[in-house]
Amino acid sequence: MSAKIRAGIYGYGNIGKSVEKAIMRSNDITAEAVFTRRDPGKIRTLSGTKVIGADKVSEFKDKIDVMLLCGGSATDLPVQGPELVKEFNIVDSYDTHAKIPDYMKKIDSEARQNKKAAIISAGWDPGLFSIMRSLFMSVLPEGENNTFWGPGVSQGHSDALRRVEGVSDAIQYTVPSEKIFNDVKNRSQATFTMKQKLKRICYVVAEKNADKEKIKKTVKQMPNYFADYETDVIFISSEEMKKEHSMMNHAGNMFRNGSTDKNEEHQMEFRIKIDSNPGFTASIMVAYARAAFRLFNEKNYGAKTVLDVPVSYLSAMEREQQIKELL
Amino acid sequence: MSAKIRAGIYGYGNIGKSVEKAIMRSNDITAEAVFTRRDPGKIRTLSGTKVIGADKVSEFKDKIDVMLLCGGSATDLPVQGPELVKEFNIVDSYDTHAKIPDYMKKIDSEARQNKKAAIISAGWDPGLFSIMRSLFMSVLPEGENNTFWGPGVSQGHSDALRRVEGVSDAIQYTVPSEKIFNDVKNRSQATFTMKQKLKRICYVVAEKNADKEKIKKTVKQMPNYFADYETDVIFISSEEMKKEHSMMNHAGNMFRNGSTDKNEEHQMEFRIKIDSNPGFTASIMVAYARAAFRLFNEKNYGAKTVLDVPVSYLSAMEREQQIKELL
Repeated sequence: MSAKIRAGIYGYGNIGKSVEKAIMRSNDITAEAVFTRRDPGKIRTLSGTKVIGADKVSEFKDKIDVMLLCGGSATDLPVQGPELVKEFNIVDSYDTHAKIPDYMKKIDSEARQNKKAAIISAGWDPGLFSIMRSLFMSVLPEGENNTFWGPGVSQGHSDALRRVEGVSDAIQYTVPSEKIFNDVKNRSQATFTMKQKLKRICYVVAEKNADKEKIKKTVKQMPNYFADYETDVIFISSEEMKKEHSMMNHAGNMFRNGSTDKNEEHQMEFRIKIDSNPGFTASIMVAYARAAFRLFNEKNYGAKTVLDVPVSYLSAMEREQQIKELL
Repeated sequence: MSAKIRAGIYGYGNIGKSVEKAIMRSNDITAEAVFTRRDPGKIRTLSGTKVIGADKVSEFKDKIDVMLLCGGSATDLPVQGPELVKEFNIVDSYDTHAKIPDYMKKIDSEARQNKKAAIISAGWDPGLFSIMRSLFMSVLPEGENNTFWGPGVSQGHSDALRRVEGVSDAIQYTVPSEKIFNDVKNRSQATFTMKQKLKRICYVVAEKNADKEKIKKTVKQMPNYFADYETDVIFISSEEMKKEHSMMNHAGNMFRNGSTDKNEEHQMEFRIKIDSNPGFTASIMVAYARAAFRLFNEKNYGAKTVLDVPVSYLSAMEREQQIKELL
């Protein structure tokens, strides 16, 4: 048996904790340390993984095979990604779709200069759904892709809401349009915009004396996150938030309807239904940590996405066993 | 623009014709020639692709970038694959699951010796479903995979039936067990055998004076294809065959139900519903032809499977465009 992959967990919120759990459940990866910008003395990890101040991360340069970046996409990752990849192989779930090419370019340049392997945007969307969009489109070139998110909570969008001035807590539900979902399920090859396909419902707890109209306006105009969507902002009390909105389940569907001849229509669908968005995202990140370390060992440096990595790289199984048992 | 990929089509049955159609619909691949063991003068291709006798295939050694092998898995491919890969990059949809490791070893050895790239078993199962089994298992290690085939016609199994002595025509329907399908859909993490999950129904036209009992016995005992399944053999007339069994539609579902914590259950599903089994399989093979040629250009020789190839390799789109538009 080869040695276990030594993972670092950078950030210890919902995703960080779930990454630790996923590592506890895997046989070939071990959690070396959690890194935090908070007071390390005040954090107790689930499995007793040691907690280190973020300022000391460089000391672990040779003790960690892959660093899993568990911060948010809005403000954490754009700073942490390009910095950490100078010293570590990294995996993240950066999810601001519109900014991915820019983010990748930055990570790629640092990763190549420093001979590190990075896999970015390795969550479920971007991530698993991206694989499906690309694969489905290639195997059925004439047709249309349609992705539906929800019903469920989006962590990225909830985080973005919480950063708005005057907001003390918030949660965002993504809900698909039933009519358009059924059109697509019934093999429509039409294209629908995200605005037609889904609605964003934001439940917001405002700080005392906050300007609610200003919050509403800021949210509705927030680029990438809300500006392009039908967005409802509903103010609730913190009691109601705790009572009614503690679930983290989610769902999503991705369809491709296409043709190979005039009487040959085909449909492919990828669907997920998940109880915990951070639990599922973390589990995906851990699989890609395995792939990132493998790329590093092959001296295949730079920034990669889920589109660039063969699925066999994510598995703890030997390739020959996979071919025998899974093909 | 770079030059088009020059494809060869080896075998001109259902799959071969569909491969030609898929190539006609793609902008970056062109059909150079169809190769046949029949009399080339008697074959007219759909798009006017020239038809060459299989014995003259070596003359096209430098004129074809990728050869798409369109013969059957039972007797054609085990002979043709290892032979053709000596002179050509190849793609096939070899689908005898149990014999894949052996077949791959033979192809791999010839491909490496002759510096060629091969992608084997690139259909929908093995193929797309294999990608899902591996990917789903890696991102959700605690759980169970369950694949359901049908309701639909299996070409491979129909071909196998037609090769039985005394059979003049035959078709095989794969039908999932409704009860077990619903258990899995409702997130059961139990394991079910293929025998529990599906049934094979064979409609057979016997030759005049054929021994029907012997045919039935031969079919039911056929290893890999029927021996491990609940199999019904029903004899019908050739008129009934033509009238009732000319459809080639199919369907399939692959589920993974798994957990990341005690109250965190997740479900992933991949589903297809296709009007034409050969049309869909051929369309997949053409996407992998693109990947095979790319592997060859990277000097990445040997036999690969769909588990070994990044999805971005299947696309006619540039990687950067894919990352921007699909991730």
